Amino acid sequence: MSLEAKATTMLPELETELRRQVARLHAPRTEPFFNMLAYHMGWMPDGSSTPSGKRIRPLIVLLVAEACGGQWLRAIPAAAAVELVHNFSLVHDDIEDHSPARRGRPTVWQLHGVPMAINAGDALFAISSQSILDAISNNDPELVVRAATCLHSACLALTAGQFLDMSYEKRLDLTVDDYWPMVEGKTAALISAAAEIGAILAGAEEETVRLYGIFGRKLGLAFQVLDDILGIWGDESKTGKSAASDLVDGKRSLPVLFGLGNRAEFARRWVASPIRADETPAVAELLKVEGAYAYSVEQAEILTGAALEALRSAQPLASDQGALMELARKLLTRPS
Amino acid sequence: MSLEAKATTMLPELETELRRQVARLHAPRTEPFFNMLAYHMGWMPDGSSTPSGKRIRPLIVLLVAEACGGQWLRAIPAAAAVELVHNFSLVHDDIEDHSPARRGRPTVWQLHGVPMAINAGDALFAISSQSILDAISNNDPELVVRAATCLHSACLALTAGQFLDMSYEKRLDLTVDDYWPMVEGKTAALISAAAEIGAILAGAEEETVRLYGIFGRKLGLAFQVLDDILGIWGDESKTGKSAASDLVDGKRSLPVLFGLGNRAEFARRWVASPIRADETPAVAELLKVEGAYAYSVEQAEILTGAALEALRSAQPLASDQGALMELARKLLTRPS
Repeated sequence: MSLEAKATTMLPELETELRRQVARLHAPRTEPFFNMLAYHMGWMPDGSSTPSGKRIRPLIVLLVAEACGGQWLRAIPAAAAVELVHNFSLVHDDIEDHSPARRGRPTVWQLHGVPMAINAGDALFAISSQSILDAISNNDPELVVRAATCLHSACLALTAGQFLDMSYEKRLDLTVDDYWPMVEGKTAALISAAAEIGAILAGAEEETVRLYGIFGRKLGLAFQVLDDILGIWGDESKTGKSAASDLVDGKRSLPVLFGLGNRAEFARRWVASPIRADETPAVAELLKVEGAYAYSVEQAEILTGAALEALRSAQPLASDQGALMELARKLLTRPS
Repeated sequence: MSLEAKATTMLPELETELRRQVARLHAPRTEPFFNMLAYHMGWMPDGSSTPSGKRIRPLIVLLVAEACGGQWLRAIPAAAAVELVHNFSLVHDDIEDHSPARRGRPTVWQLHGVPMAINAGDALFAISSQSILDAISNNDPELVVRAATCLHSACLALTAGQFLDMSYEKRLDLTVDDYWPMVEGKTAALISAAAEIGAILAGAEEETVRLYGIFGRKLGLAFQVLDDILGIWGDESKTGKSAASDLVDGKRSLPVLFGLGNRAEFARRWVASPIRADETPAVAELLKVEGAYAYSVEQAEILTGAALEALRSAQPLASDQGALMELARKLLTRPS
């Protein structure tokens, strides 16, 4: 079965579960609170949905569960939990990064203010923890505790990664060595946990769980590096996001930290003052000349290779391996 | 055994567990992040502690576990989890309420800025979830899932209560009916969960768990009402907090909502403009004349009675009932 066929079956079930989970706040007095969360999740009051993320992480939970011989339906509450964690972190990151828009719509803090948005993120976080424990209804309690432990560790890693990112703001001595621990937390930890949780709930052996964890982790890192490359050298007409905008935003991406580590012309320009939009083509070119593009592309290739290697070693069922490979390819070969 | 004797045995174990849990962030790169959390928890870098809350909630977990015939040591990770949830909510509430100080020290956001403080609260939240699952090492997995489910429900209730409180800010039509759902979430839910979790991990029957939940809930509500009374009519020299400061802060306390519901002189004064410090004696007196003091004291007495009644019905072991009664009395008869 192709990835698309699987996703077509799985995603509606996931969406139903997500709505069921967030509906815990669906009560007369907390209706406006529920609406804040529903808005962030992309659910319109008329029942329709607006693009609200690709639900990649929960799809990984479900595909891995199936690839380990488990029933993906049993992993639905855990998959919803992973997506809720991702969304809680987006709501808080948007406040922390002062981002006014996400997916083309105003962010929650922009609409409701910082205090309400902090609290809305906390609610999504609490609901994610409730959601994964709901897996108890058709999974062994011991496996549920293992899966939840895995999810909560990823949550802590998310905060550690976000701490590192914020702590880098005023640092001028950064190198690529500072990049990896940051994205291990910010991006890789939750994707790794998604894959592990799928395997755990399917009752996979410890070594298999570990291999799926590596698959998710390397996939997450490769995805982040590619995102960083596109954020500087991407084709705006294809990626949909303003090319080189990461330079203007001052994002501590892999190419930038590579350039800073060089302590050459790019580094001098970067620390002098924020990059202006009109300078971005020249600065992007400078970074390329200094080797940041080649280094980043090489890292993305190494990580992609490691992800696929771990996936093969985990020995997914033949019928499911294809869908997971396809998902990885889809993630890693976005329009550039 | 007296409450004091029990607390003297239990609290050092609890503190060790809290430090062990937060030490998850004790790594070279995240050391300053660990220090933020340690600061909030009241742990000084030299190993000493500064007053950092009375650890009432975890003490309830442990006392109830023992009162149900369980071993309190087994409930230590769950007790730590409850205290961590309380502290996560304080870190975020301080941002949301724009409070510069807590327990006589600058708040986390005041020292490190809002983005870092949001993230520090998230870390405490994540660690609390990890902590309660650590109870798996010497408890039945099914009970651990039940206890964690109870904790996470309280977390969601906390956010719902906080939402109501914030949503009341610009409302002029409030009455006491708006008070109870707010404090059910903000104060009662976590104390109720603390008592339930103690009973659950001790393997108590469902009905007993329910009764302890009522005990905690009514105790929490009584505590909040008393706190509200002291915040307006308390004796500054005894309570340590500026009397009537709640009026200046615009806090939506029970006496204030009672007064607003009257739609008489107090209500007109309240909605006209913020209360100034020099007016507080007159406004407090006005509220008393309108019946807010008598109503609030009556409510506190009813709730205290209901809490003790539920405790008796739960039939704690005789040797432990005394300590729980003493804790309730201590909470409810603070200097006024």
